[in-house]
Amino acid sequence: MTVQGRLFILSGPSGSGKSTLMRRLLENMPGLAFSVSHTTRKPRPGEEDGVHYHFTETAAFLALRDQQPSGFLEWAEVHGNLYGTGVVEVEKRLQQGMDILLDIDVQGARQVQERRNDAISIFLCPPSLDALARRLRRRATEKEESYALRLENARKELTCAPEYTYLLVNDQLETAVEGFRSIIIAERLRQRRNPDGSPVQMVW
Amino acid sequence: MTVQGRLFILSGPSGSGKSTLMRRLLENMPGLAFSVSHTTRKPRPGEEDGVHYHFTETAAFLALRDQQPSGFLEWAEVHGNLYGTGVVEVEKRLQQGMDILLDIDVQGARQVQERRNDAISIFLCPPSLDALARRLRRRATEKEESYALRLENARKELTCAPEYTYLLVNDQLETAVEGFRSIIIAERLRQRRNPDGSPVQMVW
Repeated sequence: MTVQGRLFILSGPSGSGKSTLMRRLLENMPGLAFSVSHTTRKPRPGEEDGVHYHFTETAAFLALRDQQPSGFLEWAEVHGNLYGTGVVEVEKRLQQGMDILLDIDVQGARQVQERRNDAISIFLCPPSLDALARRLRRRATEKEESYALRLENARKELTCAPEYTYLLVNDQLETAVEGFRSIIIAERLRQRRNPDGSPVQMVW
Repeated sequence: MTVQGRLFILSGPSGSGKSTLMRRLLENMPGLAFSVSHTTRKPRPGEEDGVHYHFTETAAFLALRDQQPSGFLEWAEVHGNLYGTGVVEVEKRLQQGMDILLDIDVQGARQVQERRNDAISIFLCPPSLDALARRLRRRATEKEESYALRLENARKELTCAPEYTYLLVNDQLETAVEGFRSIIIAERLRQRRNPDGSPVQMVW
């Protein structure tokens, strides 16, 4: 019998260093895969369908979204484009025993938790609000949103940190990578319980 | 405010490789300390009072044990000697923010869980009963107990594995050390909750 994979959620405000952290973790973490999202946005140069995103027509996205129950574990509209995590793909890979990592915001994390209350959620924090402000300012010229808006959004996201299972502070990158990796390894060693408290899987 | 330390329990049958694993972990895990037990057994050559054990007269041990509530988180009689984990020492170091590791058997683990239901318990398993039998046979000449008795006790202990939070299989030592270390790190990142679900400590 294949043991079902675990569903991990990573959230963190813009400027928390999430992308770097995920890239570093996935380089060296067999059995953990990143979930490929659906989007109605057009592919950018170099982006491949099925690798970076499942590029989806708006009508098809809306049909999937409005199924009962929804075909998306979570979905959101960002800058006029729709983004969503498909249930079928995630469930299929979990059934195969693969652990899945979702990179979603606090709203998306809440939606996922409603459908899958066994999801393990990790919130990535900057070491301080000052450090976050400095990182955002450094990037301010590269991005569409204004510095002030991004900082305000980050502040709002930080207030949701208490909803998460784990809190990971990204002060030193190496320490954060080790912490993230440790969470994945430890969760694999944690005994999963049925509602009556008995373990899901017996070893002996 | 100092954040209270966490209490870790490690159990595992004779032959599971527990001593080696603990030594390897403690070499390189700041903030985690081994609890020094009380015993009525006489010191062996090289053993220091307060380092290896608190060597205690039987009358003093019994007085501590029979306090209400007991002065021991757990205690046991082994080969006619009494062994116990003192509440005061453990609580004092937890209050100082130190994480404490207890090396106790399944009976002791149950006693501790009754007093401290926030203790994090780890059960160390051999990779298989055959592997355990081989390890015990190899040591059979060195130890007081007979091989058959030790194997029977190990079998009994293994049936208690489902009571533990984590199950760590000692197949490859390096993998087990990494797993053990990951559990400690991940638990430090896990948000602790008050009975109403609110986090014990706010970061922001």
